[in-house]
Amino acid sequence: MNTAVSDIEVIKAKKTKIHDVDFDHLSFGSTFSDHMLECNYKDGKWQAPKVVPYQPITLDPSAKIFHYGQSVFEGMKAYKDAKNDIYLFRPLDNWKRLNISSKRLAIPEVPESYFMEGLKTLLKLDSEWIPKKEGSSLYIRPFIFATGKGFHASPANEYKFIIACAPSGAYFAGKVKVLIEETYSRSANGGVGFAKAGGNYAGQFYPTQLAVEKGYQQVIWTDDNTHEYIEEAGAMNIFIRINDTLITGPTSDRILDGITRKSIIELAKAEGIAVEVRKISVHEVVAAAKNGSLKEMFGAGTAAVISPISGFGYHGEDFDIPELENTYASLMKKRITDIQTNKCEDPFGWRFKVE
Amino acid sequence: MNTAVSDIEVIKAKKTKIHDVDFDHLSFGSTFSDHMLECNYKDGKWQAPKVVPYQPITLDPSAKIFHYGQSVFEGMKAYKDAKNDIYLFRPLDNWKRLNISSKRLAIPEVPESYFMEGLKTLLKLDSEWIPKKEGSSLYIRPFIFATGKGFHASPANEYKFIIACAPSGAYFAGKVKVLIEETYSRSANGGVGFAKAGGNYAGQFYPTQLAVEKGYQQVIWTDDNTHEYIEEAGAMNIFIRINDTLITGPTSDRILDGITRKSIIELAKAEGIAVEVRKISVHEVVAAAKNGSLKEMFGAGTAAVISPISGFGYHGEDFDIPELENTYASLMKKRITDIQTNKCEDPFGWRFKVE
Repeated sequence: MNTAVSDIEVIKAKKTKIHDVDFDHLSFGSTFSDHMLECNYKDGKWQAPKVVPYQPITLDPSAKIFHYGQSVFEGMKAYKDAKNDIYLFRPLDNWKRLNISSKRLAIPEVPESYFMEGLKTLLKLDSEWIPKKEGSSLYIRPFIFATGKGFHASPANEYKFIIACAPSGAYFAGKVKVLIEETYSRSANGGVGFAKAGGNYAGQFYPTQLAVEKGYQQVIWTDDNTHEYIEEAGAMNIFIRINDTLITGPTSDRILDGITRKSIIELAKAEGIAVEVRKISVHEVVAAAKNGSLKEMFGAGTAAVISPISGFGYHGEDFDIPELENTYASLMKKRITDIQTNKCEDPFGWRFKVE
Repeated sequence: MNTAVSDIEVIKAKKTKIHDVDFDHLSFGSTFSDHMLECNYKDGKWQAPKVVPYQPITLDPSAKIFHYGQSVFEGMKAYKDAKNDIYLFRPLDNWKRLNISSKRLAIPEVPESYFMEGLKTLLKLDSEWIPKKEGSSLYIRPFIFATGKGFHASPANEYKFIIACAPSGAYFAGKVKVLIEETYSRSANGGVGFAKAGGNYAGQFYPTQLAVEKGYQQVIWTDDNTHEYIEEAGAMNIFIRINDTLITGPTSDRILDGITRKSIIELAKAEGIAVEVRKISVHEVVAAAKNGSLKEMFGAGTAAVISPISGFGYHGEDFDIPELENTYASLMKKRITDIQTNKCEDPFGWRFKVE
């Protein structure tokens, strides 16, 4: 299916909201740009996408999103360089993963042209909403949910695909202390953990609240069967540096195939850093913390890019990770954001110019 | 918190839709009564519930239900007896379980009085919608979802609790053939499988589609780690009769504590049937099917009450369960529905008169 930019109908907002926004003090994902992409699935196919004003959605109380959790989403960012050119980072990977998630949730897949041309049309229209301040960006949220009606527990016959944009500041402020989870789990073997499915996130909130009450900011999930192996941190993949080796768990049907994660693996290798993609046990991390070989832990994801971890709790004990001067975390963050914001060459072909 | 019936504000629909409904040919959960209960959580508490016309809901595109799957629901039924009195079945158990689900999903718990008085007010107003035809009932759907805004992956600060009603015919027609699942899973240890959370259902649709393509109607879930033990059938708990013993798996954090399930356990014991609540392995079921001791399998849940299973597929082989004349399934279904519809005494105190 091909949809040229000129094919996408645009209904402009009557009035911009941009003058109400303080771009120097943006929080994450709570201010929305003037427009959104909207595309409806009905009669067995995705209808033509449209760019419309960012506006409320009206649904029947029996719409399946309210009952059966059929929803998937993506997280992306748009950046502006010094010349005001607009860039995305590996956007086709988001489109592909959206469809991988959708398939697992029995949601119809979205054509590439609807996603890419729709997004480009939206970004060009709302280009003034892309922040230029260091660390800020336009957070982009593509999402699909079931609008079809009825209380029968079966896939919906109608869906809505939306791309909305939120100019945003940094996701996390500062280093975080994490709790390695021993009771609750994020995902099952053969489940939906690899998908960006809404239900994966709702299930993490309560255990995270419990961790926060104990003085931690995030949970590190372990496998649901033994709680012996590090999986991910819900909204982030996890990297662990032992001595000079950077380790991250392999993706699986329980772990999200993060775009920041795989970019870091490639970047680190290009920097000559030893990278191991393998199962990593809690015991190995605890032993490394005790003998001083645990140099760094950090989360990696689109929202936070890289989120350094200052220490972790496990089995009633707290472990601090001593401060280092030159961390892999800060190096990787600089390399990625320099590519994202067109401050350096992009030998990997990850940067995507919106034009 | 106490809310007397007289406290619940009622905004009546201008016009009833009841004359458009063919009560002799009702499907399941696709026709909705004139009114619904609506209650909003904001400013840290549930606001006063209201009965309002069944009407569309308008939400911001960033409402967390669309992104992070924070939703829980219940399934209940209302019946009318020969004197037109209205009955519910163990409604307080639904209220309790709704709150158990909510807690796991970081959703604020609903006060008993809001649930019960709200439901009673709604049922009395829409009493004409309760079908009297054998096998039909008014299906009741209490549900809660996150309405609070923002793309930050954290619990919402606003929610909507709704009770909607759908006059309904039988959920399944006839016996079903099931596939014992060996690849996909429904829930993790330490996950949300015991909760009636939206995301638990969305994750089942795709594996169920694959089973349907192979000629089965439903999936029997097994544990995610070994696929050795029978868990549940998504919208139903599972009972297995070997010789004259009725067996069902124990509830756990992966298995829903079904109200029909626990009623059957009590009813069967009262009938003098040997009941075992214990782990049951796929191998035991296969062996019983081969040696002829597997007499019955059936699902149990509010929607279908009891859903007899005619056979199952496992590891590429199909096993038929021969027809019996006097089944536990039909006996249990008669006992439960007689109690539900006030056709017999209720020694258990399960029937609840709405007055």
